[in-house]
Amino acid sequence: MTNEPDCISFDDLVSAIETKITAAGASSAVAKVLATNCATCERDGTLSHGVFRVAGYLDSLTRGWADGTTEASVDVVGPSYIRIDGHNGFAQPALAEAGPVVDQALDDTGVAVIALRNTHHFSALWPDLEAFARDGRVAMGMIASGKLAVVPEGATCPVFSTNPFGFATPVADADPIVFDFSTSSMSHGDLQLLRAEGREVAVGTGVDSTGADTTDPNAILDGGGIRPVGGHKGALLSFMIETLAAGLTGGAFTYEIDAEAPDGAHTFRTGQLFIVIDPERGGNDAYLGRVREFVDMLRDAGMDRQPGDRRYANRAAAAERGIPITDSIRSLFD
Amino acid sequence: MTNEPDCISFDDLVSAIETKITAAGASSAVAKVLATNCATCERDGTLSHGVFRVAGYLDSLTRGWADGTTEASVDVVGPSYIRIDGHNGFAQPALAEAGPVVDQALDDTGVAVIALRNTHHFSALWPDLEAFARDGRVAMGMIASGKLAVVPEGATCPVFSTNPFGFATPVADADPIVFDFSTSSMSHGDLQLLRAEGREVAVGTGVDSTGADTTDPNAILDGGGIRPVGGHKGALLSFMIETLAAGLTGGAFTYEIDAEAPDGAHTFRTGQLFIVIDPERGGNDAYLGRVREFVDMLRDAGMDRQPGDRRYANRAAAAERGIPITDSIRSLFD
Repeated sequence: MTNEPDCISFDDLVSAIETKITAAGASSAVAKVLATNCATCERDGTLSHGVFRVAGYLDSLTRGWADGTTEASVDVVGPSYIRIDGHNGFAQPALAEAGPVVDQALDDTGVAVIALRNTHHFSALWPDLEAFARDGRVAMGMIASGKLAVVPEGATCPVFSTNPFGFATPVADADPIVFDFSTSSMSHGDLQLLRAEGREVAVGTGVDSTGADTTDPNAILDGGGIRPVGGHKGALLSFMIETLAAGLTGGAFTYEIDAEAPDGAHTFRTGQLFIVIDPERGGNDAYLGRVREFVDMLRDAGMDRQPGDRRYANRAAAAERGIPITDSIRSLFD
Repeated sequence: MTNEPDCISFDDLVSAIETKITAAGASSAVAKVLATNCATCERDGTLSHGVFRVAGYLDSLTRGWADGTTEASVDVVGPSYIRIDGHNGFAQPALAEAGPVVDQALDDTGVAVIALRNTHHFSALWPDLEAFARDGRVAMGMIASGKLAVVPEGATCPVFSTNPFGFATPVADADPIVFDFSTSSMSHGDLQLLRAEGREVAVGTGVDSTGADTTDPNAILDGGGIRPVGGHKGALLSFMIETLAAGLTGGAFTYEIDAEAPDGAHTFRTGQLFIVIDPERGGNDAYLGRVREFVDMLRDAGMDRQPGDRRYANRAAAAERGIPITDSIRSLFD
């Protein structure tokens, strides 16, 4: 591969991020996992979770708010049930550490419930989920993200985070279908972006500090709050995600950790839950093909863009030309 | 208990429904489970899934579209993974049949994935989920409901059902928190009700047969379609639910069974997925109390009505005075 001018190769980008994260005090194992994750998001066009996030990782490491040298404790509490204490490290290295145990559970039993606690998850969910789907599993993931931001109808203040939820499935003769989304009307990052651009949001997106509807991102971000997606249904999803990703994992609920976090912290020591299932176990061999038929039906009905399509297109372009160099990438070399 | 005038006791209501369902050809075991489920919904105020539904059960039984005499095959395909073939029977009796095996999996491993196929689920999800929470488990449930009704953005015709999703958790010294909801902007039943009342719906609820936004329930129900809740996020949830509750279970996708169902069928032979976890396994003994604190925080923040509160109030009232007799109940005795 020859990179085009103003492009960087995936491997070079991983190295550059790794260097920064190692310099902030992380072990090389942790830095490698985080750098690969960040570069993957950047390569696939998820810029909000790509190199843009490196500064947040560095901040948590240099403050000592997150531990970049710790190893996770992996506890197999049932043949299909794995509990992980991340000891205040990051979620992706903890998940990587548990990889062999998780694979064993899936091979042996067809099911793995993976409950992580005391872990900072500062990326998108889809890279975690896509990895399972590449191995032929379906996977669901959810995060208590730790920053109080969401005000459901009836509440006088934010009580939930934007609580991401995601899902992945393999598909016959195609890339997996993988998606994640915040259970709020808008993600925190998108709202900050609109504020920076001086733009307004639709009524229903959020409220100001008095609890009144507002179209001003400033009012939502400064003392107000974002509404859940889809009214009370989004609030119920957030409730479930906090209950499972914090309560069931034994991690911190958003309302607990938000109060503890130092001013300006970008990452939060909470919990994450993954439920992974082998869809072909027990004689369901037709699964991959049937999902393919389902997806083909959706495309035929006009839904020609399916979740992941854009990422895979970006990935293919990056393989050919390299990853476009942004200001965030340039700053890695300052 | 003495029933007030115009009220019926829970047991009498169960018997009356049982008689009808048995007369339509169901076995007494199946009739008992379905009648208890219907009477439970009626008692707790979920009238849309209460006695109102009896006619639909009777219709499917007398047509021979559903089998009221079959027994389910329960296949333990892993220590935490149970696959059930309902052989064209109803979901609740199949789930009841698997009860001991499910309990064993939960006691032994802390996890039970329950995948039902070839089953008609014609009730709310919450009674199934509440039962798990009463035993101290958290439970998630989802249904490929089988009636094409939902048109996501970009699609030229309905491709999903209203695909219900639900969740339940036990709470220390309190009733469980239990909820379910359709992943569409509005349930099919509510829309029919608004049509009957001659009322309009908000823009965004659904589209007419040309795909244009409409506020007329007639246009949505006759050749149009309901929108997913929360735009593309609701569509992603529906995608996941069809994939898991139909694909992974080996049951029928909505788009498949809708084409097969006889005209006017009310129940659909699809699939349902339940994921049940023991939240205290592996040393997480504080779970129930921590969820209680979380719920207390929400109530303190102004969310004084939590999911299930109204049902529990109706249940308490029914225990004291009996269940109010509606026209639907009266018709059981015709």
